[in-house]
Amino acid sequence: MGLPKTYDSFEFIQAGSEVITVNMLKGVGIAGKRAMTSTSSPGFSLMQEGISYAACEEIPFVILNVMRGGPGLGNIGATQGDYRQAIGSGGHGDYRNIVLTPGNIEEMYDFTIKAFDLAFKYRMIAVVLADGKLGQAKEGPVLLKEKDEIEINNYNVDEWAHDNNQNRGPRVSTSSYLKEDLMEKHNLYLQEKYKLIEKNETDTFEAYKIDDADIVCIAYGSVSGVTKEAVDACREEGVKAGLIRPKMVWPFPSKILQELADSTKAFLTLELSVGQMHRDVRLAIEGRKPTELIEHMGGVIHTPEEIYNKIIGMEKHYR
Amino acid sequence: MGLPKTYDSFEFIQAGSEVITVNMLKGVGIAGKRAMTSTSSPGFSLMQEGISYAACEEIPFVILNVMRGGPGLGNIGATQGDYRQAIGSGGHGDYRNIVLTPGNIEEMYDFTIKAFDLAFKYRMIAVVLADGKLGQAKEGPVLLKEKDEIEINNYNVDEWAHDNNQNRGPRVSTSSYLKEDLMEKHNLYLQEKYKLIEKNETDTFEAYKIDDADIVCIAYGSVSGVTKEAVDACREEGVKAGLIRPKMVWPFPSKILQELADSTKAFLTLELSVGQMHRDVRLAIEGRKPTELIEHMGGVIHTPEEIYNKIIGMEKHYR
Amino acid sequence: MGLPKTYDSFEFIQAGSEVITVNMLKGVGIAGKRAMTSTSSPGFSLMQEGISYAACEEIPFVILNVMRGGPGLGNIGATQGDYRQAIGSGGHGDYRNIVLTPGNIEEMYDFTIKAFDLAFKYRMIAVVLADGKLGQAKEGPVLLKEKDEIEINNYNVDEWAHDNNQNRGPRVSTSSYLKEDLMEKHNLYLQEKYKLIEKNETDTFEAYKIDDADIVCIAYGSVSGVTKEAVDACREEGVKAGLIRPKMVWPFPSKILQELADSTKAFLTLELSVGQMHRDVRLAIEGRKPTELIEHMGGVIHTPEEIYNKIIGMEKHYR
Amino acid sequence: MGLPKTYDSFEFIQAGSEVITVNMLKGVGIAGKRAMTSTSSPGFSLMQEGISYAACEEIPFVILNVMRGGPGLGNIGATQGDYRQAIGSGGHGDYRNIVLTPGNIEEMYDFTIKAFDLAFKYRMIAVVLADGKLGQAKEGPVLLKEKDEIEINNYNVDEWAHDNNQNRGPRVSTSSYLKEDLMEKHNLYLQEKYKLIEKNETDTFEAYKIDDADIVCIAYGSVSGVTKEAVDACREEGVKAGLIRPKMVWPFPSKILQELADSTKAFLTLELSVGQMHRDVRLAIEGRKPTELIEHMGGVIHTPEEIYNKIIGMEKHYR
Repeated sequence: MGLPKTYDSFEFIQAGSEVITVNMLKGVGIAGKRAMTSTSSPGFSLMQEGISYAACEEIPFVILNVMRGGPGLGNIGATQGDYRQAIGSGGHGDYRNIVLTPGNIEEMYDFTIKAFDLAFKYRMIAVVLADGKLGQAKEGPVLLKEKDEIEINNYNVDEWAHDNNQNRGPRVSTSSYLKEDLMEKHNLYLQEKYKLIEKNETDTFEAYKIDDADIVCIAYGSVSGVTKEAVDACREEGVKAGLIRPKMVWPFPSKILQELADSTKAFLTLELSVGQMHRDVRLAIEGRKPTELIEHMGGVIHTPEEIYNKIIGMEKHYR
Repeated sequence: MGLPKTYDSFEFIQAGSEVITVNMLKGVGIAGKRAMTSTSSPGFSLMQEGISYAACEEIPFVILNVMRGGPGLGNIGATQGDYRQAIGSGGHGDYRNIVLTPGNIEEMYDFTIKAFDLAFKYRMIAVVLADGKLGQAKEGPVLLKEKDEIEINNYNVDEWAHDNNQNRGPRVSTSSYLKEDLMEKHNLYLQEKYKLIEKNETDTFEAYKIDDADIVCIAYGSVSGVTKEAVDACREEGVKAGLIRPKMVWPFPSKILQELADSTKAFLTLELSVGQMHRDVRLAIEGRKPTELIEHMGGVIHTPEEIYNKIIGMEKHYR
Repeated sequence: MGLPKTYDSFEFIQAGSEVITVNMLKGVGIAGKRAMTSTSSPGFSLMQEGISYAACEEIPFVILNVMRGGPGLGNIGATQGDYRQAIGSGGHGDYRNIVLTPGNIEEMYDFTIKAFDLAFKYRMIAVVLADGKLGQAKEGPVLLKEKDEIEINNYNVDEWAHDNNQNRGPRVSTSSYLKEDLMEKHNLYLQEKYKLIEKNETDTFEAYKIDDADIVCIAYGSVSGVTKEAVDACREEGVKAGLIRPKMVWPFPSKILQELADSTKAFLTLELSVGQMHRDVRLAIEGRKPTELIEHMGGVIHTPEEIYNKIIGMEKHYR
Repeated sequence: MGLPKTYDSFEFIQAGSEVITVNMLKGVGIAGKRAMTSTSSPGFSLMQEGISYAACEEIPFVILNVMRGGPGLGNIGATQGDYRQAIGSGGHGDYRNIVLTPGNIEEMYDFTIKAFDLAFKYRMIAVVLADGKLGQAKEGPVLLKEKDEIEINNYNVDEWAHDNNQNRGPRVSTSSYLKEDLMEKHNLYLQEKYKLIEKNETDTFEAYKIDDADIVCIAYGSVSGVTKEAVDACREEGVKAGLIRPKMVWPFPSKILQELADSTKAFLTLELSVGQMHRDVRLAIEGRKPTELIEHMGGVIHTPEEIYNKIIGMEKHYR
């Protein structure tokens, strides 16, 4: 319980580049210690090679990516354009990252703690995926936890970490599988692990006024706040809107969407990217109900009015 | 028309790293000249930051990525695990690359020529996406084109290239859009361009025995060859199998699949990755017909028997 | 006095490259903290740019360079080919490094402690310059100091360090002097400092049997051990040999050599490089007495016999 | 003789960094082709590792280093603070570079041509060492040579180059000499070569009014011009001043200085560094005649008056 002695101290290190950063994270992680970095979009792109290696070698660490306007240099406005990249399409090969999506400053803190736990629970990279608005916002005080309120679980770290234990043989961490059947076997093992996580981790979304909802919105991060405002405004008008807010986008809360497809009339995705999350919504619904999308990109964020009007319109159209 | 004088010569340059390579490609491309690199999976991951920048700035060049077993270092077997990464999910932000998928050695040559043409036609990065089997195969002689058989079209390069023209004002290439509405406007412009390409470019697939097919396979690259064998074997048994072989995976041949959904009984995706292409198949079909998948990963490739048996089984099941 | 609390802990950091290493050392040093790296010849060459910057900005840190056979990759034998490079000719511009030259394992430890003291005393880079034999030797136990036996003096670090002190204005560390007269003024200041060090630091050599010596040898590092053997063997034969062993090669013990030029008959330099130290000997003697040299290079070290025979020959010749 | 066909064309390549630049130069040089780069002080420092490797492997190429105010970032004024670094003390181990020191713009052109010739004649790095004043000066038109006025001699390039010749066994270029006696043997070979160059290359200086000179100045680069003015002014006053202007500083024109030591009264070194060249003057004279020095550093250059007054003073003092 409480902070183990080793976590009483921490160190900030300035790395030489993003390529080096991700390899330093690998080094700390394989030693069974906790390390994280924070970056913003272009820096995250530079880490993709190392991410693919770490995913293969099951090395746990945490990356906070505060997404900004892009592609390219862009600006420091709020976007969600790194969604697919974060969940595991940024690097080569088939792998997944756990991706937590805080919706406010408090969650920026809480989800980072949770990210470390999940990273070590599953020997995965956990990405905290925020947007430029969250990255720059100031909110009322965040309740920092007392040291003994944080439970740090090292899980089975002793079984795999390259630690100082002299009473065991050498341990090797590698992503080199020259024999193709062994590489496939390892990939099958990884996919099994990913399926297990999809099954185990159920606290992946917040459900807001969905029980009788005709129009179910899906939005995360900064967009979820304005969407709630729009949902509330609709409810005041008697229009039954609701919201599924993913707290993780991998594993993605597909199951709740599939269940809601029975009762709701239509789905509305709100995101700051060109349908990147909407594709996961559509894959969940698979044509059973209409799915619509309002997307922004480049740092512009939806207004509550814009969403409100869309919901009202959809409610009439799909009545 | 023949080779313009400037293309009578070419240079090989050894770059200092993959991060530098992609930036050298940007430099050549913005000068209105043709450059390409070839790489394999991890090297491609290292180029993702530069790819995102170039996509935003509309700088044309060609990358040949011979996908290998992964994630991580993996092996040099045949996989297709970089599919999503290649089409535009590898770097940050919303963008697309044109992705050509040769099915044999002859096409490795022809599609590279075509890649340059499309790159300059649309000011895009064009990726030639091959797999380790194609990268290492030896086949009967490739018919190299005579110089005057290759038509090189520079399109409107004079309007944008940073060339030596002294009779014009300075030109700036940047992906920095500090004003968020201008960044969004640029993204909308890019998305319009992408839609135009999806509409314009129709020679994106080969249709093989699909006219009366009950089971339509979808496979590209090295997998398409073994799939054809399986289709032929099925046909000999009276089972009506067919194949859509994407020659590009972006733009993806969704339209033909949507049309076939009216007539066929089921779809079968064969790929060397964990459903990366299958997701695009499902998004095209959207639940109208069953879609199944055999995936391999890590360098192992399907056998014709494996596919044959699957088709036979599906044909019975969906009869 | 004992270790200040901040030195109760230390951290090892693996840098991304030698170019990065030297810049990390700069970062720690300018913060007023103690940092060192160890390297071997080619790595030292890669640090030369940063060394020149740090010398200009008066940033203190320590580098242990265990010289190996060169130039190029060479081997890990004992040489002294980085002598000039270490004293301040490796980087661009006019500067000096303090260079300590341990002669045995015990001094490897003691001189490193002293290097930190001198580095902070004068805001200089201090190089501990060892050779491959010292780097690989095993000797009887080194007497490690108890914590309270090491006196750590921070000198005037509060006056210049970029520390966390909130009660002062900002501090700037730069080597950019756009005005040429200010750059010259700074160089004159540095040269004054170097002269002060040459005057202040007198414990720069060990004198061995020199009082009545006819032939004075000069040798440092691993060579000094075999030279002592040769000197002893000469003395047994009644030949008055002696040894000046530099414990630092910058500042170089020129003064003792100039004094000995009155009484001795000739000087003999023994070094593992092509007269790099011999040039400093000659500049000290300036033709007043004969100066000879036996040089080895590439990892080969002198034998006592070789030196003995040379001394005997010189004693006869200059009698 | 004229330009061989291969030199009818040339290519500019932008390298990724200075560390990469020097390795690209190595690559071109070992192929037996001609390559050069230009840089300024800090960039030159970053190349020192590669220079040491190339010197060991006898790979010919040319570097133009336009020295600027230093150490560190400094300024772009005229200095000569990289003198020792350039002649072979910048990198680790014992080696030499040929160093040509143009005194005006015309020589910047001519000496670069000569540098290539010497580099290939001796399989050495040749450095053209200029200063910030030369680098920025504009002078009357430089007479560019017609193609057939430049005689390009490839010497014995066929015997060592890694060319495309299929009729020979493989060639290896390495600086790895694991056996220490072989490393020493190679160093002895290199030193022999350096001595041969010192003997062969006699066109290393310009002698100006030295025949009856009482005070012999030594100055190179931009300083030589103002020194000539001072010498002329002295002569008008009947004071017999002269100038030795090194056109190379390695090999250094020691022999002429040694000869002049018989007839002259004193030597005066003028340089833009802290006695870096003066040390070579002193090593040549070895106390036989007084040697004095006026040094500037940081971008400031001597005035003719300053030098004139010094010569007048010395002439009286050493009369």
